[in-house]
Amino acid sequence: MKISARAQSIQESPIRKLTALANAAKKRGTTVYYLNIGQPDIHTPAVFLQKIIAYGEKVLSYGPSDGLEALKEAMAKYFAFFNITLEHKNIVIATGGSEAISFAFNAVADPGDEIIIPEPFYTNYNGYASLCNVKIVPVTTRAEDGFHLPDMSEFEKKVGPRTRAILLCSPNNPTGTVYSAEELKAIGAFAKKHDLFLIADEVYKEFTYDGKTHFSVLQLLGLEDRVIVVDSISKRYSACGARIGAVISRNEEVMKGIAKFAQARLCPPTLEQVGAVGAYELPHDYFKEVMAEYQKRRDILFSILTSHPGIILQKPEGAFYIMAKLPIRDGETFARWLLNEFNEKNETVMIAPGEGFYSTPGRGKDEVRLAYVIEIPKLERAARLLLKALDRFKG
Amino acid sequence: MKISARAQSIQESPIRKLTALANAAKKRGTTVYYLNIGQPDIHTPAVFLQKIIAYGEKVLSYGPSDGLEALKEAMAKYFAFFNITLEHKNIVIATGGSEAISFAFNAVADPGDEIIIPEPFYTNYNGYASLCNVKIVPVTTRAEDGFHLPDMSEFEKKVGPRTRAILLCSPNNPTGTVYSAEELKAIGAFAKKHDLFLIADEVYKEFTYDGKTHFSVLQLLGLEDRVIVVDSISKRYSACGARIGAVISRNEEVMKGIAKFAQARLCPPTLEQVGAVGAYELPHDYFKEVMAEYQKRRDILFSILTSHPGIILQKPEGAFYIMAKLPIRDGETFARWLLNEFNEKNETVMIAPGEGFYSTPGRGKDEVRLAYVIEIPKLERAARLLLKALDRFKG
Repeated sequence: MKISARAQSIQESPIRKLTALANAAKKRGTTVYYLNIGQPDIHTPAVFLQKIIAYGEKVLSYGPSDGLEALKEAMAKYFAFFNITLEHKNIVIATGGSEAISFAFNAVADPGDEIIIPEPFYTNYNGYASLCNVKIVPVTTRAEDGFHLPDMSEFEKKVGPRTRAILLCSPNNPTGTVYSAEELKAIGAFAKKHDLFLIADEVYKEFTYDGKTHFSVLQLLGLEDRVIVVDSISKRYSACGARIGAVISRNEEVMKGIAKFAQARLCPPTLEQVGAVGAYELPHDYFKEVMAEYQKRRDILFSILTSHPGIILQKPEGAFYIMAKLPIRDGETFARWLLNEFNEKNETVMIAPGEGFYSTPGRGKDEVRLAYVIEIPKLERAARLLLKALDRFKG
Repeated sequence: MKISARAQSIQESPIRKLTALANAAKKRGTTVYYLNIGQPDIHTPAVFLQKIIAYGEKVLSYGPSDGLEALKEAMAKYFAFFNITLEHKNIVIATGGSEAISFAFNAVADPGDEIIIPEPFYTNYNGYASLCNVKIVPVTTRAEDGFHLPDMSEFEKKVGPRTRAILLCSPNNPTGTVYSAEELKAIGAFAKKHDLFLIADEVYKEFTYDGKTHFSVLQLLGLEDRVIVVDSISKRYSACGARIGAVISRNEEVMKGIAKFAQARLCPPTLEQVGAVGAYELPHDYFKEVMAEYQKRRDILFSILTSHPGIILQKPEGAFYIMAKLPIRDGETFARWLLNEFNEKNETVMIAPGEGFYSTPGRGKDEVRLAYVIEIPKLERAARLLLKALDRFKG
């Protein structure tokens, strides 16, 4: 009686696996600044809970498997603001972006099939690859290039008979990179050439800075039937705990398959969908203040980090992460040391080691991901602590 | 560019696939009585929403991957009432019983592995088997025997080198059968003999009638490390839309694997967990009235159905389903005809065709599942409509 190979092999979240050490540090009385996790401190819009309070049903019953019509309607209106026209049948509401990823993987790939993903990438793609028995084939991007996409020839090298899809994330977690329309068009042409699906994780679509705007793969012409978008309200409305996301595609066969996956788990959480409708109905102005705040945070974190000559990074263009190359040998040893030993006036920092964001063995060992989701005075203090720690760390 | 084999092959829910026909009937002005779906009409306890309203956090943030401590605590107390001692580490909160099934399948089986399940069984096991690429090996139970377990020799025949687990559901969906302690002990010994996991879906544990009590596989001695229980609040507190369930096991390796699956999807819905804590804190008396109501409904449905000489069924002992063998050739044709053509004073009935609950081809074609989750006058009317329809139906 053995547990499955997938249960044995699935990666522990590099973002969450050091949580026990952080808790121990807190117990010792040390203040821990959390730069490891993308949990925004922005308040969830009050309308979210208000809508739920106004929920008038006596029975909290199953909703439709593919999500509440009202939520699809609200989403379609929201996307129309970005000149993206969606019909209800193009949307299946998922239990978080996480489930949307799992739906997309399962819809395009069978066990042993391959999906090409630029690395570093969001670690939970690894989790779902293990669960779905899909193989991730990485194309490495570099800190020196701001993690922008390499030449298409690098992608060409990775295509094989089992390749089913390319997965992009833009604005990118963990790098903050926003791919240009040109980069996406090139990838789109590549997907067409090799007859692949193009999956795009666009859950950070609103989070672009310096006046840059996000170009969605849903806007790529002639690729309508290849594109599958992973969406979520977690970051958009600072509602990570709601677990409301969506899969969006105009490929009817894909959506039919995903609708059946959705039936297997009955429905997404009803009350949180009700709350999400309220959030989607907010005027678009809502984002202005939020974006201004994040841009300020990025600028502060970036300027403190670049004051250290040993740190390599480009200014991130979106999301709320920085992937930085540090003058260290092993990010995990450093991260553990920060929680176990480092202490500056009873304070320390928690970071996410970079290696877990790579699939090529050994890559990213000298990198860490930092999330700028805490308020500015704390962020500033955390960044300065990190620099002090770097100077003190022997590794 | 093709969708995956699993997306093509996954079964459409036999409970939900006729929904479009029901909607069309409603549009024509026909009243449809829904006996197809296990959506109780019992009010969700008011404390569920009250707890959510009292949720004081400004940010709806990620919770722990394995669930809120407060919910684990409330669950452990609840199980203690049944003399089942659970530690927090024995529980991972899941997004509905559905996710709990998927976690259990993925923890014990890899693609190509087999799980033995008595049929008819809850159709969504099929969905997850497709998604996880696990093969369901059925052991047929019969309406004539009240769907109780056949002799162990029937199970022996189904064990092969890829068999990893047996899955039981008691009280059973779709049959209403409650396995006796003796049946479960026999299956437990069988699991031990063949070194298999024993997965038990016990989401209907409270729903037993005529003074019968439910025996949990968690009470089987000497099987602590083999047993994995799928649990949910959906039926317990009439909160199907909440999507709060749990996996329970004392096998540490299993729970470690499942904790990593849980990390991959970040966390279960936060607000619905907060509500669930409130429900679990209700005094146990809460169930008395609910059970009395269900028992009355069962009695009425059973007595009307048995008044028809062509219907074969035993009195179900639990849950809120009846699996009845009807004098028809094909349950799906009958179910469609009910929605498309049958009309008695502008009323009709929706039922779940039996075939989808079987995995042996051709089995269950003359059976249907009926859920008694609507109030008594409606249930009575629906049952009488069904008898009228049977007499009128040519097939």
